[in-house]
Order: sequence, then structure tokens, then C-alpha cells
Amino acid sequence: MLIIGERINSTRPKICEAIRARNAADILKEVKNQIASGAVYIDVNCAATTGDELQDIDWVISIIQSGVPGVNICIDSPNYLALERGLKAYKSTGSLFINSITAEDARINNVLPLAIKYKTKLVALTMDDKGMPDTAGGRFEIAKSIVGKVKRAGFNTNDLYIDALIRPISTEPAQAAEFLKSIKMIKALGDVKTICGLSNVSFGLPNRALVNSIFLAMAMSEGLDAAIIDPTEKRIASSLAASGALLGVDEYCGGYIRAFREGKLI
Amino acid sequence: MLIIGERINSTRPKICEAIRARNAADILKEVKNQIASGAVYIDVNCAATTGDELQDIDWVISIIQSGVPGVNICIDSPNYLALERGLKAYKSTGSLFINSITAEDARINNVLPLAIKYKTKLVALTMDDKGMPDTAGGRFEIAKSIVGKVKRAGFNTNDLYIDALIRPISTEPAQAAEFLKSIKMIKALGDVKTICGLSNVSFGLPNRALVNSIFLAMAMSEGLDAAIIDPTEKRIASSLAASGALLGVDEYCGGYIRAFREGKLI
Repeated sequence: MLIIGERINSTRPKICEAIRARNAADILKEVKNQIASGAVYIDVNCAATTGDELQDIDWVISIIQSGVPGVNICIDSPNYLALERGLKAYKSTGSLFINSITAEDARINNVLPLAIKYKTKLVALTMDDKGMPDTAGGRFEIAKSIVGKVKRAGFNTNDLYIDALIRPISTEPAQAAEFLKSIKMIKALGDVKTICGLSNVSFGLPNRALVNSIFLAMAMSEGLDAAIIDPTEKRIASSLAASGALLGVDEYCGGYIRAFREGKLI
Repeated sequence: MLIIGERINSTRPKICEAIRARNAADILKEVKNQIASGAVYIDVNCAATTGDELQDIDWVISIIQSGVPGVNICIDSPNYLALERGLKAYKSTGSLFINSITAEDARINNVLPLAIKYKTKLVALTMDDKGMPDTAGGRFEIAKSIVGKVKRAGFNTNDLYIDALIRPISTEPAQAAEFLKSIKMIKALGDVKTICGLSNVSFGLPNRALVNSIFLAMAMSEGLDAAIIDPTEKRIASSLAASGALLGVDEYCGGYIRAFREGKLI
């Protein structure tokens, strides 16, 4: 499981404030905590600061790479100009993710050339001009169309991570099951990978960490390759460790036992 | 998910002591707590008291049905004479489970006629004269053989619950994944159901409740029909509630929200 740490997101008030105040210490603390908790990429989203997103993303990426040499970053914006500015700001020796394209032509045409030029991995959301599909089959059809388009453009689908977009079960009870069903269908497309952001699934419910952690376990069991999560959240860390042990990817449960000894499990 | 409460088991020192001392109050308290926590059947195992198992099982079943009218019981013994004694002792209006047969001829020949005569549901373990298979395929082959045998004897496979026998991941890291894979294979045999006892999976690991609860979620996601568990264990209750909500079997998460309000979730 590839973990992308989600905490450097401007929709979180503390991060928004740190970006606006150019408070590098608070940003770097969050980055280091996530890496210590298993994040391999750090997602950076500056789209909600109400400031200049391009200047903000330039600053955040610059201070992260100067504070954490070799850091891997996932640049996260619906605005391709912000993505491009982030890619240009990145001078580190690590690797990059772009979050995200959709099946919409404008998004693909603007963002895919950047992913190819900067040799990044790429998140692709299963939505198109008509919106988000309700069924596993609908998600699969959009994924198939995206895979075809990026292949024709010469992008290596080994670096393509399809996000089949989970929606809240509190208002749409069938959505988690449809999402889970779609994972194996999408992976059958070939060497394409799957990814997901967890937290939408539990929107509107109490004890969201419980629902998120159980959903993560189910998705890992279906073969999910990567997740955009908060690895410092103990419930999530516990589910990750137990799921790895149960799925046989943590040989003789060494990682699980280590996490227990380090007090990371609840 | 059909829940069979596992707490009335003579391998637990407190229960062993209550059976030996003929302490009906302690037994009934455990039964009522499990039913309040969602158990539909109460598993009764008297095989480890070192006393007379037949007399013990007769006493336990008699006092449970007098204290909880209409209670459903799962009679659990490797000894068919104890099973028969338990079946005879049961006079209630509820329904019965027998736990268990295997693919071994002696077990089938002795126990299946009892299941047919007393119209019980039946747990069948995927083991034969050669022992327990390591792979999902091995489990499937034994399940197929059991389904064939019970069908020929006239037993309704709708009442047959195959337990593909989970083993500890601490010593056999691939066993949980093989078990999970076997669920869909076994269910493809037709109207047969699947069941599992959870706790072996985490043997030898710290924070066993965490591993058990995550494994339960994965198994439910694969389509597990029933589980022999301790429904009073908060971690298990939490996983059950969250899994039901995520798999869309708890419409609009009503059961999950109620469990939260009643303080049953952690």
C-alpha cells in the first residue's frame, strides 16, 4: 500500500492559516509527522486559501523540499496552472504525483502533458462531463476510457492510479459496495492501479474514524494499491497495520508487531 | 450477518467454573448479554469441563431455555453423543444449530442424521482425514465434497454453513488471504452459506481484538454469512456495525447510528 499523506490541505483551518501566514515550521512539522507515520508522498493542496494559489503552492513546495530533502510530493489542484507552478517549484531528488485528471477532455488535455513532461505518477478520477457514475460498471467504463486516452498519449499506465470516487454512505447506502466492486474490475484493465481518498465515505456519520478504518480494510482486501489518508490518525494506522498482516504483505506480522511496540495501534 | 455468540464455552475458565458449580445465574447473565448485543444463536460448548459432557450439556441447555424462552441454541461438540443429548434436552420453540461436521465419514455418518431428525442448521468444517488444507482451492474441494454428501442424504444446503477454518497469521502469514479467497469460491457452489470463528486468526499477536475486528470486516466484504464471535466485545461490535453500514445492509446506517447512541461503538 502506497500512502499519500493528506494533511497539507488548505481546507483544514490550521493549514490554511499556516500558508497565509507563511509559517514554515507548522507546515514542516505536519510533513515530518506524516512521513514518520508511513506516508511515502505528501499531498499539497493550496486551492482553498482564498489567496493566490500559484504563489501559495510555490511557497509550500519550496519550504517542504528545503526542510525535508528528497521528499516525494503529490501536487493537488483542480487548476492546471497551479499544478504546473508546483511542478516547476519542485527541485528535489524525490518523485512526484499529480492529483488529478478526470475523463473530461479539458482536464486531460491540460494536465496529461505536464505528467509526461515531469515524469509524474497521476491520479485519475472516474468522472466525466456527465458527472460521477453511481455503479461499479459506470466507474469501470470511465476508467477504461481514461486508460485508453492516456495510453494513446504515451503515458505509462503503470503510473496511473484510478480513484473510483467514494461517496457518503449516510445519504447513498449502496455507494461503498459499488466502489469496492469496482476495484477488481478496474485492475482487470491491465497494469493500471487503484487509489482512494477515504474520508468522504463517512460524511454525516458519528465516529467517522471507525467507518474510515473499516472501509480502508475492505478496500485493501479488494486490492487497493494506494490511499490518500491521514497516517497520523491512530485508527487509520491500526487498520493499515492489521490489514497488511492479514493480507500477507507484512511477512510474519513484523510491521504490525513493531507498530504495536511503538504505541501506534489502538 | 447471522451472529452466534461464543461466550458459553467451557474452555473459558469462568464458564467452566459456572458449569461445574451448576451456577445458573452466571450462565444466564452471559446468555442475556450476548442476545442484547445481537447474538441470534447461543453457542454451547461443554467439552472442556473434565466432567461428564453429556450431563453438563443437558444441564446448560435446560437452564438456558428455562431462563430465556424461545432462545436459539448452537450445540457445539466433537462428540456426537453430546450433540444428541443436547438436542434431546432442547424443548424450546426456537431453532437449533449443530457445530459441527467435517468431511470425515465418521463425523458425517454420526451427526448428519441428527441434523436431519432435529431439523437443525449445520456447521461443516473444511477438514478431512488428511487434515486442514492450506489453500483456498483445497478448502473449496472439501466444501464441494461435503455439499455433495449432505445433499445425497437429503439435507437442505440452505441450512449448511461451511467454515473454511482460519489459522493464525503469526505463524502462517498467507492463511487469512487464502481463507478470504475461499469465501466466494464456496458460495459459488450454490445455496450453501459460509461461517467463521474469528479468534484463531490473531493467535500469538498483540491487540488481538484489532486484528479480529479487521478480519471480520474483510470477511463480511467477501460475503461471509455468519460468524461465531463475542458480540459483547466492543471492537467486534464496532466492526460489525460499520461493516453493515458500508456494505449497504444497514439501510441509511440506522443500526450504526443507534449502536453509536447506545454507546456500543469504539
